[in-house]
Order: sequence, then C-alpha cells, then structure tokens
Amino acid sequence: MADVVSFRKEESNGPLLREFDGPVLRLTLNNPPANVLSIALMEALLAALEEASVSKEIKVVVIAATGKLFSAGHDLKEMTSHRADPDGGRAFFERTIRLAAEVMLTITRLPQAVIAEVDGLATAAGCQLVASCDLAICTDTSTFCTPGVNIGLFCSTPMVALTRAAHRKQAMEMLLTGETIDAGTAKEFGLVNRIVPQQYLRQVIDKYASIIASKSPQALKIGKEAFYRQAEMPLADAYDFAVGVMVENMLARDAEEGIGAFLGKRMPEWKEE
Amino acid sequence: MADVVSFRKEESNGPLLREFDGPVLRLTLNNPPANVLSIALMEALLAALEEASVSKEIKVVVIAATGKLFSAGHDLKEMTSHRADPDGGRAFFERTIRLAAEVMLTITRLPQAVIAEVDGLATAAGCQLVASCDLAICTDTSTFCTPGVNIGLFCSTPMVALTRAAHRKQAMEMLLTGETIDAGTAKEFGLVNRIVPQQYLRQVIDKYASIIASKSPQALKIGKEAFYRQAEMPLADAYDFAVGVMVENMLARDAEEGIGAFLGKRMPEWKEE
Amino acid sequence: MADVVSFRKEESNGPLLREFDGPVLRLTLNNPPANVLSIALMEALLAALEEASVSKEIKVVVIAATGKLFSAGHDLKEMTSHRADPDGGRAFFERTIRLAAEVMLTITRLPQAVIAEVDGLATAAGCQLVASCDLAICTDTSTFCTPGVNIGLFCSTPMVALTRAAHRKQAMEMLLTGETIDAGTAKEFGLVNRIVPQQYLRQVIDKYASIIASKSPQALKIGKEAFYRQAEMPLADAYDFAVGVMVENMLARDAEEGIGAFLGKRMPEWKEE
Repeated sequence: MADVVSFRKEESNGPLLREFDGPVLRLTLNNPPANVLSIALMEALLAALEEASVSKEIKVVVIAATGKLFSAGHDLKEMTSHRADPDGGRAFFERTIRLAAEVMLTITRLPQAVIAEVDGLATAAGCQLVASCDLAICTDTSTFCTPGVNIGLFCSTPMVALTRAAHRKQAMEMLLTGETIDAGTAKEFGLVNRIVPQQYLRQVIDKYASIIASKSPQALKIGKEAFYRQAEMPLADAYDFAVGVMVENMLARDAEEGIGAFLGKRMPEWKEE
Repeated sequence: MADVVSFRKEESNGPLLREFDGPVLRLTLNNPPANVLSIALMEALLAALEEASVSKEIKVVVIAATGKLFSAGHDLKEMTSHRADPDGGRAFFERTIRLAAEVMLTITRLPQAVIAEVDGLATAAGCQLVASCDLAICTDTSTFCTPGVNIGLFCSTPMVALTRAAHRKQAMEMLLTGETIDAGTAKEFGLVNRIVPQQYLRQVIDKYASIIASKSPQALKIGKEAFYRQAEMPLADAYDFAVGVMVENMLARDAEEGIGAFLGKRMPEWKEE
Repeated sequence: MADVVSFRKEESNGPLLREFDGPVLRLTLNNPPANVLSIALMEALLAALEEASVSKEIKVVVIAATGKLFSAGHDLKEMTSHRADPDGGRAFFERTIRLAAEVMLTITRLPQAVIAEVDGLATAAGCQLVASCDLAICTDTSTFCTPGVNIGLFCSTPMVALTRAAHRKQAMEMLLTGETIDAGTAKEFGLVNRIVPQQYLRQVIDKYASIIASKSPQALKIGKEAFYRQAEMPLADAYDFAVGVMVENMLARDAEEGIGAFLGKRMPEWKEE
C-alpha cells in the first residue's frame, strides 16, 4: 500500500510538486507558464490524490499553483496536436476530458478535505478544479472565468462543477459571456469561501488546514462522503440515509471519545485511522 | 380531533412552551440552559406540530427559544447515558436522531408556514431546526454553527437541511471547520431571511406572522406543499406537476374570491378551512 | 421553414413587438397597461420563440416590455371571464397555465441565449418569465414579486422557475408573504445578473447581446442545452454526460477553428449554422 511519506523523499520537479508537512499534503500545479492540465499533470494529480486517499497521515489536501496563473485549463496545444491522429483526435480528447472529470470526482470522493489555494487566474478546467474542491480560498487579485465559448468549445465539463457551487443565472453569465469575474464576485457567486490579501494567503490556508486537521479523521471521512451523497437525494431519502450515517457515527470510537471529552471538558484524542 | 384552543388552558411549564394567540401558534424551546433537543422536548415539539397541522385556527407557527441560546442541538448527556444500554446505545441513538429528522420533515410538511425566531446561538441540530423552517429571522447577535466535527460526530443530519438552504462550499465550510458564523454571514449563506436588532425581533416576527396569516390558508397549504415537492423534480416534471396544482387552485373557492376581490378592488374574505 | 427576416417586414402592433436587428431578436411585451400574459400574448411569444429556434441569423433573444410595468403575470380578467364556461373554467385555466409553462420551457430549450430586459415591476408569471430567461438585467428601480398568495392563488408555476434561480428560504419569503423586493435584493437572491441605471439599460443589454452574439452559435447551442440537462443529474452522471458533450464539441468545426485561432492569435470565423 502506498506510503505518503515517500513524498518527502521525492524529487519534486515534475508538473506537480508534492509537499507533505505534518497532516497536510500540498499539491502545487507546476506547469509554467499557465499550469495547463496536460495529461502528465492530471495523471500526477490523480495519482497523488489516490495515494492520499489511503494515507493515515494526511488529513487535508491543499491544491495550489506556482506563478500568477492558477491554471488555464486544458492543454489546447497537446489536444490540437492529436487532430492529426487517424481518428481526428477523438480518442485523445475523450481520454483528456474524462481524466479531468476523474480528477474532479476523486476530489469529492477523497476521505480528506480538499482546499483550493488560488492566487491568480483560474480559467475553464482550472476554474472547474477550484469549484470541485470542498473549499476555496483566494487572493483579492484572483480572477475566474469559463471562456470556452470564446474558442468554440463551451465549458461543458467545468459547468458541472460550477453549477453545483453557484446559482444558475450567475453560472450562465460566466458560461455564455466567457467574461472574467473578480474575487469578490466569485465569493458572491459561491465559488470561493474567503478572499485574503496575497501576503496572508498561505497563513490563512495553513490556519484552515490546521483547524480541519485537528478534527477526527473518522468523522471527516464519514461526513464528507455523506455530504455529497445526500445532496443528490430527495429530502426524505436524504434524512433516511443521514440518520443511518449519524447512528453509525455515534457508535464509532471517535464520537464516543469526542463527546466524552466535551462533557468532561478535556481535549479529545482521535484514533489514528 | 385535536383542538388547539386547549393550548390556552394548558399549563406551559415543560420543555416546550405553547402560546396560541389569534392565528399564530408560538412554540418556545424551554429546556435551560442550552435548549438541547432531548427526547422530551422533541416529542413535545412533534406533538404540537401534529396538533397544529389539523387546526383550522392556526395559520402560522413560530419556533422561538428562552434564554440566549436558541438550541445547542442534541442532548449529548442523555445520549451518552445510553451507551450503557445492552446494545451500546444504538436503539436510543436511532430513536433520537430519527425523531429529530421527523420533527424537521414535519415542519416542511406542515400546511402552515413555520418561522424560526432566533436570538442567540443555534448549533448542530439547533441550526438544523433553523434551516428547516420555511423562514428564519434572527437578531444581529445571533450565531450559527454545525460543530459536530469537533466532537467526532459530523453534523450529517443537520447538513441535510443546511445544504438545501445554502450553497455547497459555504455549507461545507461550516461542516468541516465547525466554526461559528455571525448573523450577516448566515444571511449571505441563505440560512436566514432577515436580521433585526434584538429589541425589534418580536415586532418583526409578529409582522411577518400577521402578513402571512392574512392570506388564504387554502392557498398557503396548496403552495407550501407544492413548493417542497416540485423542488425535487426535474424542470419539465416540476411544470407538469405545478400546472396541475395551479389549475386546482384556480378552481378552489379562495382563488375565485381572491381574484374577484382584486378585480373588484375590495378585501377578500377567506374561507375558514 | 420560418424565415426570421419576415420580422422586419411585419407590422408590429399586436401584443408582442418583434424587432430583428443583426443577430439579436428583440421581443417586446406590448399589452398595456400591465403587459398581462393573455393567451394572445403568450401565443405570439411562443410562436416567435419557435421561429427563432430554427433561425440561422438570430443569436440572442431579448425579452423586454413597453411601459413601466414589465409584466403583471396572467390575465386575471380573461381567466375570470371563463368561470362562466360549462366546466367552470377548468379547460381554459389549464390551457392558460400550460401555455405559460410551455413558453418558459421553450426559453430554456432555445438554442440561443435569452436575456430578460427588465425596467419596472415583474409580478407572478411576469417574475417567472424573468427567472426563466438565461440571464436577466434590470434597472435599479425594478421590483419583483410573486403575490399570488394575496389573491388566494399561490404562485405555484412561478415558483418552479424561482426556486431554480434562488435559495429556498429567499424564494419562500417571496411566495409566502407576496411582498415586493427591490432590484438589489433580486440580485442578491440570484434572480437578476446585473442592475443598471435606467438610461444605460439598453446600452448594457446591447453589450451583453453583442458579446454573446460574437461567440460560435454552434458552441452556444451545445452548451446551453447541456447546461439545463446536466443540472438535473447526479454529479457522476452529469460528468458522464458532459464528457460526451465536450468530446463532440471538440470534434465540431467551430472548436477546431476557435482553438486554431486562439493558438494562432487571430480572430475566429464561426460557421454559419
């Protein structure tokens, strides 16, 4: 089974930097100049997420980026080069776009919380990546757009994540016009949780990560999984499901410890998963 | 059949105070110091709601609380005491959490509008109660959180109500961090409708209640039921359903009276249900 | 097949004015004093939308209104007059309300983007019309309400559109109280995209329309259709669907042209559909 401590030893000079510090795994898109989501970068991201998913040490994953452009989305040069394939690129396009969807689904299915740390422009699948994280924190100069419509390629997969984060008309405005929104608008739309000045970004991310890392990993895993599942159910079904989740959670070790600690006014000690 | 006038005669000194004034039933959580949702309080709440549901006099239900803590959620002491049960508490936990879900579903299914009147902290299932009401009005010093994650018990049932009121990332932030949000943030998230200074809370609640109570009970019942049902349907199905609802509503007595009054520039007189 | 150029020749003095200017079809509700959605107006609107749907020239549809009242919703006088029908009006009510639903569904199904241009009050089915457009831009003096509850006829079909645009508690407040909200509140609720001073309304609408009209009609059509379809699916299904949409879009002519233009730093030339 994968051991994330391997991250520490690794030479991180590929398109994805991996840094493991205490309970936080920091994944940094490092594909200059625009951190486009090439096959290589997405495969590295997916592998890192899958490795994290079975880690007992990692409690929070942060997805950040080098440079002043969070991510410009898919690698259009790489995709265009495959138009010369015998199938006109179909197989490669399918592989690329499905891989991106798999990365996004893996983020929502990860037992750990995933936080997007955004400083700069996030466009198209880059915006999808931000929308797909559980939480997103950005600098006040960050901007967001889904401009596929400008190049004849509507941001149809990014909109899956976008429409689950924001109201419909606001998502539609981004998708139909391709215009760029600022950080304040992104927060208003529900796309980001918090805006901070650039010099405090890392500090705020670290604070969020350490708050979340201090919780019971067992509870976080149970809760995050239940979150995305119940969100898709009718109300009464969602309650049936969530009642079952809650009862099992009550019977799990960490709830007994946590509630005991709370009632006894002491700090809880969580089980190592 | 239950007669709500009985409320007036009743000695209200249990965990739930019931006050029936004109068309408004006021239910006040009265389980100091934290208005925890003990079995006794939830059963009283459920009974009062069920009694209200068949009342012809009650047109609005207000759920308020004594003291400066709206509700701290489930009664952790009561639940913990059942860990000593032969089944480790499973049956009691199931009973507790299912009862809470039943209270919440009963609120959405009630033919009358339900308004949460919040002054103080609403946490966990207390926050779920606020999120489950049709409307929520709070003081500017009220606060909200879903801190189960702090005690190893993720707020999985509260999140069912929370995620149907707010955007996903904002709900996730409350759930993953357990942090407390202020009234302004709660309004921004969609969790409350209006914030008022403490000295005006009752006055604003009374105004909302009297506005709603002046409407046709028939129309309110038809509309509220349709609201929650159509919300879970695909768009075209929702229209099929709502068209049918609207046609029956047009043929019902109060629409004929109401439209006639509107066209005749007079006040309508609603049928006693 | 319909030819929209016919709009130019047409005498526009019925309840719906039609103006076709370049790629923008402008439909203006013209049923003074309150632009009520009579059968005649809704049939004209539906016919114009259906004609637009097969047009190769129209890229954006704007729905505006004459006078200071965008639309007061259904024609209550017309409906009331049918209470004298042998069936008490049932068939006529059904026809009216189903026709309105058909107009709304046709807007979401139209291959072109539809923008509501609102200056004044939009109530009941008039508010539904605004909520049903892909985008809505209004003046700072515009107001919105769903006041059916005041006349015993809950706004059950308007709420289908409203609840898909706004948070639940905010929608519920409009529906239960019937109160009128101002433009700022409507923007906060997600009902409109942008508020502009009255003297700039047309200019801003024209800018939005020309931005959208400059995009590939093929991409807009693919994207808008996918938007409303994926919005109703569970996350994993939505991705399965959207990946397929995106791959076909990549293989379509305009994506090849658009991406080629982008990489070659030139302006794209879209195919006439």
